[in-house]
Amino acid sequence: MIIDPARSPLLTDLYQFTMLQVYHAAGMTDGAVFELHFRRFAGDRAFLMAAGSESVLEWLEQLAFSPEECAWLNSTGRFSSEFIASLADFRFTGDVDAMPEGTIFFAEEPVLRITAPLREAQLIESRVLNLIHLQTLVAAKAARCVLAAGGRLPLVDFGLRRAYGAEAGMLAARAAYVAGFAGTATVLAGERFGIPLFGTMAHSYIEAHPDEEEAFVRFGRVHPHNTTLLIDTYDIVRGAERAARAALRLAAEGIRVQAVRIDSGNCAAVARQVRAVLDRNGCRDVRIMATGNLDEYALAGLLAADVPVDACGIGTRLVIPSAPPDPDCAYKLVAYAGRPRLKCSAGKATWPGAKQVWREYRDGMMVADTIGLAEEKLPGRPLLVPMLRNGKRVAVPEPLAAARTRAAAECAALPAELRRLDGGDSAPFPVERTPAVVQLRSATEREFR
Amino acid sequence: MIIDPARSPLLTDLYQFTMLQVYHAAGMTDGAVFELHFRRFAGDRAFLMAAGSESVLEWLEQLAFSPEECAWLNSTGRFSSEFIASLADFRFTGDVDAMPEGTIFFAEEPVLRITAPLREAQLIESRVLNLIHLQTLVAAKAARCVLAAGGRLPLVDFGLRRAYGAEAGMLAARAAYVAGFAGTATVLAGERFGIPLFGTMAHSYIEAHPDEEEAFVRFGRVHPHNTTLLIDTYDIVRGAERAARAALRLAAEGIRVQAVRIDSGNCAAVARQVRAVLDRNGCRDVRIMATGNLDEYALAGLLAADVPVDACGIGTRLVIPSAPPDPDCAYKLVAYAGRPRLKCSAGKATWPGAKQVWREYRDGMMVADTIGLAEEKLPGRPLLVPMLRNGKRVAVPEPLAAARTRAAAECAALPAELRRLDGGDSAPFPVERTPAVVQLRSATEREFR
Repeated sequence: MIIDPARSPLLTDLYQFTMLQVYHAAGMTDGAVFELHFRRFAGDRAFLMAAGSESVLEWLEQLAFSPEECAWLNSTGRFSSEFIASLADFRFTGDVDAMPEGTIFFAEEPVLRITAPLREAQLIESRVLNLIHLQTLVAAKAARCVLAAGGRLPLVDFGLRRAYGAEAGMLAARAAYVAGFAGTATVLAGERFGIPLFGTMAHSYIEAHPDEEEAFVRFGRVHPHNTTLLIDTYDIVRGAERAARAALRLAAEGIRVQAVRIDSGNCAAVARQVRAVLDRNGCRDVRIMATGNLDEYALAGLLAADVPVDACGIGTRLVIPSAPPDPDCAYKLVAYAGRPRLKCSAGKATWPGAKQVWREYRDGMMVADTIGLAEEKLPGRPLLVPMLRNGKRVAVPEPLAAARTRAAAECAALPAELRRLDGGDSAPFPVERTPAVVQLRSATEREFR
Repeated sequence: MIIDPARSPLLTDLYQFTMLQVYHAAGMTDGAVFELHFRRFAGDRAFLMAAGSESVLEWLEQLAFSPEECAWLNSTGRFSSEFIASLADFRFTGDVDAMPEGTIFFAEEPVLRITAPLREAQLIESRVLNLIHLQTLVAAKAARCVLAAGGRLPLVDFGLRRAYGAEAGMLAARAAYVAGFAGTATVLAGERFGIPLFGTMAHSYIEAHPDEEEAFVRFGRVHPHNTTLLIDTYDIVRGAERAARAALRLAAEGIRVQAVRIDSGNCAAVARQVRAVLDRNGCRDVRIMATGNLDEYALAGLLAADVPVDACGIGTRLVIPSAPPDPDCAYKLVAYAGRPRLKCSAGKATWPGAKQVWREYRDGMMVADTIGLAEEKLPGRPLLVPMLRNGKRVAVPEPLAAARTRAAAECAALPAELRRLDGGDSAPFPVERTPAVVQLRSATEREFR
């Protein structure tokens, strides 16, 4: 059961293969254009943040069927051997245009566009959604947390244990870092992505010692440059007193305790108590880190009430960033064989034609987006940029730091109303469609309904 | 960025390594006991269903540090070279006791117990939680869906695209199958786990054709034994009429259309319309499959209103099975060096000592659970069973079918009140602790606070 599903072309829905067999039988090999967008968001969310395109590109570049995978497909008895033989040379040979990671976007805007022979663009649907959905939601959640923390609280991803599996833990750490988190506790994310690592100690560490203060002192001696003491294992006030005594003992040895961590109770009340204990006991320079079911609303509350917290770890609510069905993403065919295509399903209608999004700025702030047809020329900055052409990279992968810098610039250019946690309710960002987009939909509807 | 994080011992939190270095420096090598439990659930949830222990066992059996991983840890400058050298022979040599997959359990009951040298039991915390949390929540969600469907609606996992990454998609397919789903659309889950595969067609398939009816007929000819037609791409009533015409044309060729699929609109109203169109057009034997943001409440609503739906695909709400912070799981030290241990943190206090859960039955129905100390002998069936001893399997892995059979038996033995979707509100299952457990906590509190 320990699997490496991340690379397999079999990590897709069965219907992709059944459809591909029909396309193969019918000779439907023309070019298709699919676009990925998020449907209208509910709730108070004002924006999303693009993330995940880099993992999509890596996945597409290596996509191929092994002889074993073809043999297994054959063994199911569902497919013709001629069709399976056609998969032997399957590669992704198409184009990808996408909003670079860290870009802020809004509902119904295409964030990724695939232009490729039909079978290629179709097969990849499930995994492309699977990769983009999570990373985009985590980046948006993290960006909201960073905005709520207002530059005053460094935030760290502590979510691995509650993430839905290994890949979710890794990709969440990366998306949160893009969106402005200071780092992660996930060691492998440090190793693979170069993300700064942070950590404290667990309750089990304290419990395994006969004496809380001795456990603190021992930790400081082994890790003299990286000591954050968890103080709520038994009693938070006594824990703070013992941490203060340990800090003074360690200071005498030249070791500085950086912080204490609080993981339970009413954070605002407890942090004030702990601050008072530390201050009273000569530990004014020992900071307080808070963890435990925090999210952007909790962060805003801590800051609004001037709670003496200096850093926060965010776990469950970062890596499980939203509750279904909001927000919902879709990957939809918008053109095939040179002709626009659409669906008209109730509540899920799509806009045909390959599209682009242009963003206009005033005094450095984003003021409006326009969704136009890709061939139009509109004022503003086009948000979808070429990533792959004929299956090959247009440029070398950008460093993670570049995406992080972009995310910060995007948040800085967000109008003040949209930076509010309830920005989606109070002031939706203006996103218009060009007359050409609207006309194309009417014409395509008349043709296909 | 395409990674195989599933096996790496670096897929853990940084603090595990910092704590391990202290344990190493201090010679803290005694045996530890950790237990995993889910804290009190909020909302109307009456039970959870154990899943994921098989993946934990496989992960533990292969756990080891490669020379490259040790070299990378060394390169961080955070650890002593002597400590890193001690990881070279790291293996999991301990015991695992767990509730077998498919077992129903309740809040605060230990579902998995690790007995191992401290460093081993500590390092594995993050990944053990990461594996058990998702699979248990998905199994419980799926079991609730299966109960709501009352044996009248086969359910299929359609969640891959919304799952949080590759591993989440795979493990969700497996957990849902254990809990009674008929199968999955995820091809790789069919290949790796032998789960039955189901699929229909996408809107893009219809859109890529100039004519909806011709698209239906073409699909039936290529897949004569597996034809479910998606009918809501343009207009649901016209789609149903075209499906009926296609079904009659295919019937003349000896090909049977099994079903149509509805993916949008008000399911109850639309399914009745579609049923009427099919019946009126000679397609009484063509069934209706519904998809689109369904969950256990929607299923119960469809059945209560006698909506003519014959099968359902469940996606987003299966693979994102709950909203934080409910339910929350924890892996806590309960004994070290032969002495009980506890934490007393506000709202998160633990019960010390290695424990067992005994379940009693009356007339084949479960009536009460008792949490006792592992060394007690109580009436009823002990739910935690030996899985690993000294790092080795006690028995060969059970077939997936065995877990599925167990899950069905567990649901059948669930009291009627708890089978209700709001069972958690109306009638919590009685879970008691023995006097020995209560006394041990008091004694341990006195010792450690």
